[in-house]
Amino acid sequence: MKWYKIFTPELKELIESKNLKGLSLLLRNIHPADIADIIRELEPTERVITLRVLNKTKIAEIFSLLDPEEEEELLGYFTERRAKSILLEMDPDDRIQLLDELPASMVKKLLNLFPIEEREETNILLNYPPKSAGRIMTTGYVDLGTEITVSEALEIIRKTGSDRETIYTCYAINEGRKLCGVVSLRDIILAKPDQKIYQIMNEKVYKVYTTDDQEEAARVIQKYDFLSLPVVDSENRLVGIITVDDILDVVEEEATKDFHKMAAIQMPEERYFRAGYLKQLSGRVGWLFVLVLASTISGKILQKYSLALSSLIALAYFIPMLMGAGGNIGSQSSTLVIRALATGELSLRQWRKVLVSEACAGFVIGSVLGTTAFFISIFLLDNTMLGITVGISVATVVTVGNLAGVAIPLLFNYFKLDPAIVSAPLITTILDVTGIIIYFEIARRILNIHS
Amino acid sequence: MKWYKIFTPELKELIESKNLKGLSLLLRNIHPADIADIIRELEPTERVITLRVLNKTKIAEIFSLLDPEEEEELLGYFTERRAKSILLEMDPDDRIQLLDELPASMVKKLLNLFPIEEREETNILLNYPPKSAGRIMTTGYVDLGTEITVSEALEIIRKTGSDRETIYTCYAINEGRKLCGVVSLRDIILAKPDQKIYQIMNEKVYKVYTTDDQEEAARVIQKYDFLSLPVVDSENRLVGIITVDDILDVVEEEATKDFHKMAAIQMPEERYFRAGYLKQLSGRVGWLFVLVLASTISGKILQKYSLALSSLIALAYFIPMLMGAGGNIGSQSSTLVIRALATGELSLRQWRKVLVSEACAGFVIGSVLGTTAFFISIFLLDNTMLGITVGISVATVVTVGNLAGVAIPLLFNYFKLDPAIVSAPLITTILDVTGIIIYFEIARRILNIHS
Repeated sequence: MKWYKIFTPELKELIESKNLKGLSLLLRNIHPADIADIIRELEPTERVITLRVLNKTKIAEIFSLLDPEEEEELLGYFTERRAKSILLEMDPDDRIQLLDELPASMVKKLLNLFPIEEREETNILLNYPPKSAGRIMTTGYVDLGTEITVSEALEIIRKTGSDRETIYTCYAINEGRKLCGVVSLRDIILAKPDQKIYQIMNEKVYKVYTTDDQEEAARVIQKYDFLSLPVVDSENRLVGIITVDDILDVVEEEATKDFHKMAAIQMPEERYFRAGYLKQLSGRVGWLFVLVLASTISGKILQKYSLALSSLIALAYFIPMLMGAGGNIGSQSSTLVIRALATGELSLRQWRKVLVSEACAGFVIGSVLGTTAFFISIFLLDNTMLGITVGISVATVVTVGNLAGVAIPLLFNYFKLDPAIVSAPLITTILDVTGIIIYFEIARRILNIHS
Repeated sequence: MKWYKIFTPELKELIESKNLKGLSLLLRNIHPADIADIIRELEPTERVITLRVLNKTKIAEIFSLLDPEEEEELLGYFTERRAKSILLEMDPDDRIQLLDELPASMVKKLLNLFPIEEREETNILLNYPPKSAGRIMTTGYVDLGTEITVSEALEIIRKTGSDRETIYTCYAINEGRKLCGVVSLRDIILAKPDQKIYQIMNEKVYKVYTTDDQEEAARVIQKYDFLSLPVVDSENRLVGIITVDDILDVVEEEATKDFHKMAAIQMPEERYFRAGYLKQLSGRVGWLFVLVLASTISGKILQKYSLALSSLIALAYFIPMLMGAGGNIGSQSSTLVIRALATGELSLRQWRKVLVSEACAGFVIGSVLGTTAFFISIFLLDNTMLGITVGISVATVVTVGNLAGVAIPLLFNYFKLDPAIVSAPLITTILDVTGIIIYFEIARRILNIHS
């Protein structure tokens, strides 16, 4: 299903034989997204040749599909002048994303080559906070006056439409550039030619502010199935739009962020290769360090029960099973809740329903696993009382663990903290400690061991 | 930011006072997605009244935004005739999604009320495999003959466009309904009125087959930034389209599926409330049962080292720390790799680079955590040799665990298995067992304990 693989051998041959004309013809029929894939597989010298036969518009399109580190590498092949003209050809949002990753000195040099208007626009966009609506928006939208007619609007769209990111949703603005309506190309096409825009536009416009988080933009576009969303400044002036294709990336990025958080990874950047080796290392070691420190508590508690342990060494055999069961059930229930909170399916309002249903679930699963654990310990040691101890402990830990896995994310959500970030390490630690205490307390009672 | 909350009190008052006219006026100005949210918060009797003042088109729109179980509940408020007419008003893809979740007897009854054409169409759609492109596609597309002119095309779009899911991408078909080109409304608008469709269409059409997985459709739309994607049957006949708003849901759904798999949950359905209590329970208990069984191995190995344990009971104190460190590092590195594989950022080709970089990362992180573990054990017990044992063990387990967390998903990927599904439980078990073996083997050598 990887279309571009078909072309790669032919392409390499054309490069080898320095047949630039043939190369140019071949590349003309390949989608920029596929050329981006092909370029990734080429040797540096082959890349230089391939890029030479492409015009700046195509290169700009390809650039917007590459990762910034790849773009940076490719930019190195060009003279500053050509790099500038490629950057100017890119959509404003893609340009910002690239400039964002380049070294500051290079950005400054390139910006100085920009015409003054583009330089100022770029500087404004670069000043919005990272991951904000202002940072991912594009200025390539169609705006229409409210007083013009449908046929005038169509004329404007015909004239300016070719270099706009979307023409399918147009925005109506008044004299002060304030956003006052939205009108789809569909409405324009279906309307009578002499109708005025204000007659067919929808005055209820959903919008986000430049400083809003990109997640907020994603939420609105997802909820209302929009193709694009207008972005306004604090005075309701239209300054850009966010298109649905960028939101697809945001949704994926946000999911990745949650995956990382739940595995106790704190990364400045979601992409594996993009994060930078040292940053990635430090983002990983932080929580692990805390977790190792936290396991001191488990050690300390085991130390407290050392008499019990030494009088029945077999108690130690089941520590892994107990810790595993607690950790696994906790990660199950917390994942269910955290993900349902993230997708908006679950809201805090429903906490009572969720707690009750998970308490029951924990009890059922606990009973099954506890019984299993009982038989396993009988099989390992043939000691009925120890088996009962292990069985009851596993059942209890699982019930408690399931509830904790649900309650902690809900609590975090209640206090307006991100449930994903702190729950994995916290739940593990809590369950390890309570698991060991439950186990030894039950053992003390059932096996009559003193501690 | 929840717009609809503003309306809820007013709405409730109108319902209370039985002011149906006012209610109808109020609802006319609220977006269907917001009405869906409001309905969720109403009491059943309030819902009945609210639904009574809405016309079937609006109800159909609202229905396509609700979860199937909510839809099923609301359908119960209607007579069969009205339920039928609402279903017929819905977009084909939303209708299928609803019918899919209704009890078979109800589906049969409703389908019998359908006009024969719609009944047949619905039956065909219901027969595509779940999660396939055929199942999520809609038949509400615009197709154009290749021989018609641009102005004729615009006329067709004007006439039929109002009930099509998108008019922004049109598909060119020949006499046999075979897909032969794609033309965007943008191209049509920008073209001259007397140009023929075949002159402006793009013959290179990206498409999926009805039986392709929905993930494949998502991949193509994401990669090429399409607004819609045509779906063809095995003979290249156009049968439907998939639109980008549905792909947003697919991307989120697929991420949720991976979240669940990685927490060892096997669910038939991604939504928390939709999965059904018993199905959810059985989907969770399966892997947990396997994991508890697997922990028998850890127990067995500890039993093997019982002599060592009883001669130095303090060795047991650090089992939680060791298991925790191994499990945490393994879940970190496997999450990084599994997610990067899922988003397509990492491909199998790069295995060597990833293995080397993660081996180094594991060594660095292992050194940090091993040193920490050394100091913790000195703090707990003031036994230098034991401290050295614990430190080296933690460092080794972390290095091994990091590598295993990377290697296992890559191996699964190599054998065309889903890396997400089996790695979490597998990695935990492998790391628990190897961790304990490493620990006691090092202890045996450093502390001169016999086992």
